Amino acid sequence: MPQQILQSKIDLSVRFHECDPLQIVWHGNYFKYFEEGREDFSRKHRFSYLDVKEKGYATPIVKTECEHFLPLKYGDVFTVETTFVPSRAAKIIFEYRIIKSNELICTGKTIQVFTQNGKLVLVNPPFFQDWKKKMDLI
Amino acid sequence: MPQQILQSKIDLSVRFHECDPLQIVWHGNYFKYFEEGREDFSRKHRFSYLDVKEKGYATPIVKTECEHFLPLKYGDVFTVETTFVPSRAAKIIFEYRIIKSNELICTGKTIQVFTQNGKLVLVNPPFFQDWKKKMDLI
Amino acid sequence: MPQQILQSKIDLSVRFHECDPLQIVWHGNYFKYFEEGREDFSRKHRFSYLDVKEKGYATPIVKTECEHFLPLKYGDVFTVETTFVPSRAAKIIFEYRIIKSNELICTGKTIQVFTQNGKLVLVNPPFFQDWKKKMDLI
Amino acid sequence: MPQQILQSKIDLSVRFHECDPLQIVWHGNYFKYFEEGREDFSRKHRFSYLDVKEKGYATPIVKTECEHFLPLKYGDVFTVETTFVPSRAAKIIFEYRIIKSNELICTGKTIQVFTQNGKLVLVNPPFFQDWKKKMDLI
Repeated sequence: MPQQILQSKIDLSVRFHECDPLQIVWHGNYFKYFEEGREDFSRKHRFSYLDVKEKGYATPIVKTECEHFLPLKYGDVFTVETTFVPSRAAKIIFEYRIIKSNELICTGKTIQVFTQNGKLVLVNPPFFQDWKKKMDLI
Repeated sequence: MPQQILQSKIDLSVRFHECDPLQIVWHGNYFKYFEEGREDFSRKHRFSYLDVKEKGYATPIVKTECEHFLPLKYGDVFTVETTFVPSRAAKIIFEYRIIKSNELICTGKTIQVFTQNGKLVLVNPPFFQDWKKKMDLI
Repeated sequence: MPQQILQSKIDLSVRFHECDPLQIVWHGNYFKYFEEGREDFSRKHRFSYLDVKEKGYATPIVKTECEHFLPLKYGDVFTVETTFVPSRAAKIIFEYRIIKSNELICTGKTIQVFTQNGKLVLVNPPFFQDWKKKMDLI
Repeated sequence: MPQQILQSKIDLSVRFHECDPLQIVWHGNYFKYFEEGREDFSRKHRFSYLDVKEKGYATPIVKTECEHFLPLKYGDVFTVETTFVPSRAAKIIFEYRIIKSNELICTGKTIQVFTQNGKLVLVNPPFFQDWKKKMDLI
């Protein structure tokens, strides 16, 4: 049975203070856009970080990647496309694509793990399994 | 009896990502430098925020100001001069001067109050009075 | 004849990376919101910074202020209200109010001047006078 | 003939505004530390970005990576170890390790390319070859 592809798209614009002296978005700021993509995904697909927190979990980021193809400049309007990457491991994996007027600006990836009281959780927490079932991912 | 002037000075340098497309430090980033000045002051005059926290207090900032005379650019080395402003009110007031090669770059001010469990504390907490006595400020 | 009050309002939400260990928006980040307010004002009232730049001017910020009444937290949705403050001086003055559910979060102010080739311009540039006339401000 | 390993080490400390509501350094801020490592490397091994600029080149970042093992917290003092990764391609590759009290906090990597007038340069610029020769890298 084919898996569901879970994705969200949000339009953002470049803010002045995100640009550097080269007149382009400073490379580390793309992780802010990915965060906005991730939050947008969570809202649209009802995956709430506050729920996670209530259940005593934290989901720290353990890996980030970004590959740049074209720069964004001040005033540019762009789309962050956030895709959930299914995995059996106790990890939350997202891939990102930033697109401006049909041009690929960059791609990225983040991996989050689950911790409880500061300790790594090696099995998928029940609420995460439930969410994946509800979303037809497993 | 003349009051003691409590001050600290720290040398910092401008980082690339703090500069904007005008090739100068983005105005909001000066509050990062003031924060580094405040922390430097606290270290040198043994006014510890961790102590504050242990005693159940928080010291949120309620007012910030910055007046700019000359811009800082990428690579500039400068001094943040942080001065404690004595006050009878239950407030922590600091004034800042940023200087580069004898030129005044900007001046600033922050006001912090004391809160306990999220509520404003209107009298000076004992540990703050003790610190002021030890520092010959009262 | 009563002057026109020029204002704009934009709704924003607090991003995770804008919050500090006290679980509230870090005080220096409010100047990012004011910048978004200023850009929103400029768009709505056709005061373009790109035009300014094309005409050889820059408009560096020479003064910033912010007074805080209540904190913003992660996920909060709020309104930035940006008001143009008329002045005869060669300055661009904005006042800001951030409001969340009818509660005043903070107020702020920024003052910008005009420079040309890095030098302060003491008279109002023609394009700024034209804009003020068009907006019924003078 | 064994190649020279070019490296630099700089001690930094975590600033309050770099921490997030989880009380740890926000993941995107590690790229600021890598940038400080890169600048430190450049100073120590006389690889100047201003020289690069003077010669009409820019060196935009095209790839970033960070893998996290332990979090940094407010007040932590740590070392950024920056290592130049030799490559025949017209690329500047750095690897980073952040270490605190003998514990590995994270590792990272950045790749920069050369552009001239906004266009990708596919051969190593003469000044880069000269620098590599001087450093015994080729």
